[in-house]
Amino acid sequence: MSAVPRPVARVARFIAHQCDWASVATVSSRPPVVGQPFSNTLSVSDGPRGSGSGSPYLYLTRMEASVQDLQVNPAASLSMTLAQTDYCRQQGFDPQSPLCARLILSGSVLQVNGTEAEFAKKSLFSRHPEMIDWPTDHDWFFAKAAPHHFLLHSDSRRHKTTASARCHVVEASGDMKSWTFGLMVVASTFPTAEAMALYDPKLCFLLDGFLVVYGLVITGMFIKEKVSDADFI
Amino acid sequence: MSAVPRPVARVARFIAHQCDWASVATVSSRPPVVGQPFSNTLSVSDGPRGSGSGSPYLYLTRMEASVQDLQVNPAASLSMTLAQTDYCRQQGFDPQSPLCARLILSGSVLQVNGTEAEFAKKSLFSRHPEMIDWPTDHDWFFAKAAPHHFLLHSDSRRHKTTASARCHVVEASGDMKSWTFGLMVVASTFPTAEAMALYDPKLCFLLDGFLVVYGLVITGMFIKEKVSDADFI
Repeated sequence: MSAVPRPVARVARFIAHQCDWASVATVSSRPPVVGQPFSNTLSVSDGPRGSGSGSPYLYLTRMEASVQDLQVNPAASLSMTLAQTDYCRQQGFDPQSPLCARLILSGSVLQVNGTEAEFAKKSLFSRHPEMIDWPTDHDWFFAKAAPHHFLLHSDSRRHKTTASARCHVVEASGDMKSWTFGLMVVASTFPTAEAMALYDPKLCFLLDGFLVVYGLVITGMFIKEKVSDADFI
Repeated sequence: MSAVPRPVARVARFIAHQCDWASVATVSSRPPVVGQPFSNTLSVSDGPRGSGSGSPYLYLTRMEASVQDLQVNPAASLSMTLAQTDYCRQQGFDPQSPLCARLILSGSVLQVNGTEAEFAKKSLFSRHPEMIDWPTDHDWFFAKAAPHHFLLHSDSRRHKTTASARCHVVEASGDMKSWTFGLMVVASTFPTAEAMALYDPKLCFLLDGFLVVYGLVITGMFIKEKVSDADFI
């Protein structure tokens, strides 16, 4: 498990960069659920769009339940899935299916400072501009996921690790040293990136707008033509 | 905390019904992360579209890492967020912001049998048709989230619990007896339901199709009119 194949690292990195938020599991420190697992939604960014670092950063406040858990026990697991993007829905891949790739990081969440906090700020604020205006009295700080283990749940047909049978599932896992190495040597591009752009709803709305305008103009010209015919006759 | 205000139950029920999948936190029973929190993505359904029961059902196999955790410790937490739908993105609400409402259930995940398994099957297969063809040798079974506590993270402006200030956040929580009661007495409709329908990309594509056909027909009629004018002259 020490060597992560390049395609696995590529898919893992792709997921980590595509997802704007992660589901974060902690062990609750709060009554009435002390000691029980706790799942929450937190915004993440591994870097500005197009230049991901592979390391998800977070913008946290101690008012957040998950952060209160982390203060007692820093162990955390972050899951990110392409079900969070339009991709799986457009492709007809069920969120639980390995066709809809997901990445699970296990480790801890740690506060960052200095130049790393500056990079975290740039990474988060560029992709979550609303954060800039979040209430200043919440004592926000920057943090990062510091995983020591990861699990990638993905059908191998999608990232071509092997010439695989129909339902063969790659459940790759490994320690983070190899993941980081894998991330450093692979490109961040992936065929689905283009597929996702084509399905962007914004393009659909733009096309709608264009077609409405065209429809109105040509209808106006048609009516004008009809009326001028009538005048002529 | 025993009485759940109706609008809170309505928002909670709305989220539980809108989401096709949940992030499920368990305590890992698997090396090398034994005893640590584990986050995963599992498909859910609380009932066929339009007739939600408020109780999320799951379709599970013991091959799934989370299920192996649950066999040792049935404690689980399920989080569902409107960030999973198009709603928050369309509205410009950050996934971590309370404007983008999220629901967190804490309790356990339990296998269901008999008539409840039949209802679970109907609920899941109608919303996840791909499940019907999942490999039969995986020993699938039906299960339900059996929460004893919930937490709703939502800005009160969105569901009008109070006449609130700009950044007042309702973080409602309660035991599940009151939640079930709340769910039984409220309607399942919610203003954002209509807003979401308007933003449905499928409608956008349909509209595109209609406008293209209309554009072609009216252009054809316009050209025909022009040509017949020319003939007439």
